[in-house]
Amino acid sequence: MTTSPLGTNTVTQIGLVVSNIEDTVRAWSALLGVPAPEIQITDTVDVAHTEYRQQATPARAKLAFFHLGQVDLEMIEPIGEPSTWHDQLKAHGSSLHHIAFHVQGMKDRIEALAAYDLSLIQRGDYTGGRYAYLDGSEKYGAIVELLEND
Amino acid sequence: MTTSPLGTNTVTQIGLVVSNIEDTVRAWSALLGVPAPEIQITDTVDVAHTEYRQQATPARAKLAFFHLGQVDLEMIEPIGEPSTWHDQLKAHGSSLHHIAFHVQGMKDRIEALAAYDLSLIQRGDYTGGRYAYLDGSEKYGAIVELLEND
Repeated sequence: MTTSPLGTNTVTQIGLVVSNIEDTVRAWSALLGVPAPEIQITDTVDVAHTEYRQQATPARAKLAFFHLGQVDLEMIEPIGEPSTWHDQLKAHGSSLHHIAFHVQGMKDRIEALAAYDLSLIQRGDYTGGRYAYLDGSEKYGAIVELLEND
Repeated sequence: MTTSPLGTNTVTQIGLVVSNIEDTVRAWSALLGVPAPEIQITDTVDVAHTEYRQQATPARAKLAFFHLGQVDLEMIEPIGEPSTWHDQLKAHGSSLHHIAFHVQGMKDRIEALAAYDLSLIQRGDYTGGRYAYLDGSEKYGAIVELLEND
């Protein structure tokens, strides 16, 4: 039970954007002492329904996930643009991008969180679920990602 | 048991630098549905032995910690300079700053991690322990913090 408009306060993922995911995955694999995860590519816009600032975008990304207990560490290399991934890599270089929470009722959460000054930057679908990035840079010091699995 | 040179692969903290910690703590408190934590100030250099790039620094910070299960969410508002906190706030604005791991044998860890292209940027003591920030921005996409409690 929580009074959070997220419905949870458990951080489940930390994401970072990088310029070369193969190199970064290799580095983290050695640092964490675990096997390198497979590198995936997000679906094309017709499948992922990727939207950046309420407009369909062809932007994609290479992704890899290290599962570290409660928290997944996600590496993201942008492919194409526009996307929040591309924006951040261009503006700030390889860097921490978001912290994520698993939620239920994505649409209602996004609407409710507008009152908390968290505005939707980007959303999309993946097999078995969907994500949304909310811009909290100014007020929260971070992009907040919502993840919902079916 | 792990083969990691960290001796662990459990992320225990996410840190972010902000321009106004009172406002940021209030915002996160509402978002997470938990009471606002107390804001602390790091010790002066004579007590904390704060070093930035191997030189003593008078820089301090206001800190606040949300305890969220495995992971603490740390807010940091820099006071004075030079520090990695000040550098990042100046270069990138309020933003995610580091991910941290609790380690044992700080001195040996720092030495061993140089071979992983993680170089010491800043270190210091706090009551009951010590911290070190290692610059992994280029290779890892993040600053890695080591924390050691006695």
